[in-house]
Amino acid sequence: MFLATYWCSFSWASVLTIRLLRESARDKAVFLHGQVNGTSGDVKDAVVILEKTPFQEENISDLLKNHTKLQLQMSNDIYSTYHLYPPPQLSEIKTTVIYPATEKHLQKYLRQEVHLIRETGEDYKNITLPFIQSQSFSIQWVYNILEKKAEADRIIHENPDPCNGFVLIPDFKWNQKQLDDLYLIAISHRREIKSLRDLTSEHLPLLKNILQEGKEAILKRFGVAGTQLRIYLHYQPSYYHLHVHFSALSYDAPGISVERAHLLTHVIDNLELDPQYYQKQALTFALRADEPLLKKFQEAGRA
Amino acid sequence: MFLATYWCSFSWASVLTIRLLRESARDKAVFLHGQVNGTSGDVKDAVVILEKTPFQEENISDLLKNHTKLQLQMSNDIYSTYHLYPPPQLSEIKTTVIYPATEKHLQKYLRQEVHLIRETGEDYKNITLPFIQSQSFSIQWVYNILEKKAEADRIIHENPDPCNGFVLIPDFKWNQKQLDDLYLIAISHRREIKSLRDLTSEHLPLLKNILQEGKEAILKRFGVAGTQLRIYLHYQPSYYHLHVHFSALSYDAPGISVERAHLLTHVIDNLELDPQYYQKQALTFALRADEPLLKKFQEAGRA
Repeated sequence: MFLATYWCSFSWASVLTIRLLRESARDKAVFLHGQVNGTSGDVKDAVVILEKTPFQEENISDLLKNHTKLQLQMSNDIYSTYHLYPPPQLSEIKTTVIYPATEKHLQKYLRQEVHLIRETGEDYKNITLPFIQSQSFSIQWVYNILEKKAEADRIIHENPDPCNGFVLIPDFKWNQKQLDDLYLIAISHRREIKSLRDLTSEHLPLLKNILQEGKEAILKRFGVAGTQLRIYLHYQPSYYHLHVHFSALSYDAPGISVERAHLLTHVIDNLELDPQYYQKQALTFALRADEPLLKKFQEAGRA
Repeated sequence: MFLATYWCSFSWASVLTIRLLRESARDKAVFLHGQVNGTSGDVKDAVVILEKTPFQEENISDLLKNHTKLQLQMSNDIYSTYHLYPPPQLSEIKTTVIYPATEKHLQKYLRQEVHLIRETGEDYKNITLPFIQSQSFSIQWVYNILEKKAEADRIIHENPDPCNGFVLIPDFKWNQKQLDDLYLIAISHRREIKSLRDLTSEHLPLLKNILQEGKEAILKRFGVAGTQLRIYLHYQPSYYHLHVHFSALSYDAPGISVERAHLLTHVIDNLELDPQYYQKQALTFALRADEPLLKKFQEAGRA
């Protein structure tokens, strides 16, 4: 039987109300909270993300020829601006639905003030680790990928070794239609490595496999060389199962800023310098005002 | 007489060919070079910029109701993605034309490929340092600030100690009108520290002064707390005299990505772990195809 039949299915016709959680004018994206009539008559929450898609090179001349309207807005010296209205097939919007969504999903996309946290090794043991263990954020979708119960046809590369192996798969954020915003994720087969904080020199073979085979697979499949890739981990990650991000170097992807991203090559070098580097050193990251982990740091007098 | 009559008017029907100069997947924009049939029969150049527009809150429910097509792409656990095709009036593209365009306009928008460089300590000594020494980048403007010969009225804070002191000053990019994009620079009084690569444990008092006094001065003058600040060095820097960036944490400032920025707290921690950390460890940065330093790495077979 298909796993899918157990999933709670989302129907656009059942959306009752929709409100804005957050918008990003730069990314041309909005994050919405939908209230949906459930199959059993109860009202459930959904997160709906709309994001305009990047232009595709092969469609550009079509766009300039087959627009439905082109309207001059202003003209000054050598500069002029127009409003161009493209036909529907040339103006796709990428739509992501999380349903049913928990309060945590809603909070994740709500606009919030951010605070910088400096987490020492002691802070991790006393504050962050107990917090992670107390949470029950499901990562079933990760196990579905590793066990080929979902997205099996999307896998770009796999090293099946249960200890030092991983699966390389395009990230949800990338539609694979242009290389400009190339974005893939390597997911470790080993399940007990929660994050960067757990890494020691013991994990060097796994990390080196991800770096080397990930670059080779991307070159082979997409023709993009390793020197054109930014390869990094997030701390804090959005889910506590070891994964590594591969994004196009020229792409100003979300989550590449210095307070969140850690280059895989530097992680490897630091572990070779000191096998306990990531247990000893303080790590710095930003938390939004509503994140429960911030409250834990505040209660402990550490934020 | 109307100035407008002198302008060379642009006609969409006269566009002969169009080619891609550059695209930005994050901003959903493309920069095009058009060749246009001029009125006098000659072929002229144009730059055409297409950029998708941000969503407007008041149109969102319309968009979800009045799409022309909605197509399921994939479904996994609570996540699903769709392709949504909106009607033309809800998917405007902002179009900018520069016509006639000069060679300089074309160069400005042309894509420069970027290459990731992994610079070992040896590479620094053999390639980067000789390159820096061979350049005659003038940093007179830095000395003018330190000697109060320029911008003296803009100084926010100074520690005058010639060894461990510095000057804190708003960055040129910040107009000081809103705190959203707050951006200041701390410039060391010591002149022989070129960059992160020169730092050893000897410089810890200077670095700690910049961190502590910089945060205090910004809190006092602008009311922005240290936990709202991203404090970092660039490697490679844009000029080789030690300086530290202070930008608002919520501001997606240029140059904060992991392949360029190094948090000052991490730099201090790394120097306390190993006084020679920044002479020993490899550092990673991106260089554009037209940068002379890239050529030096290529000649040395290191890029």
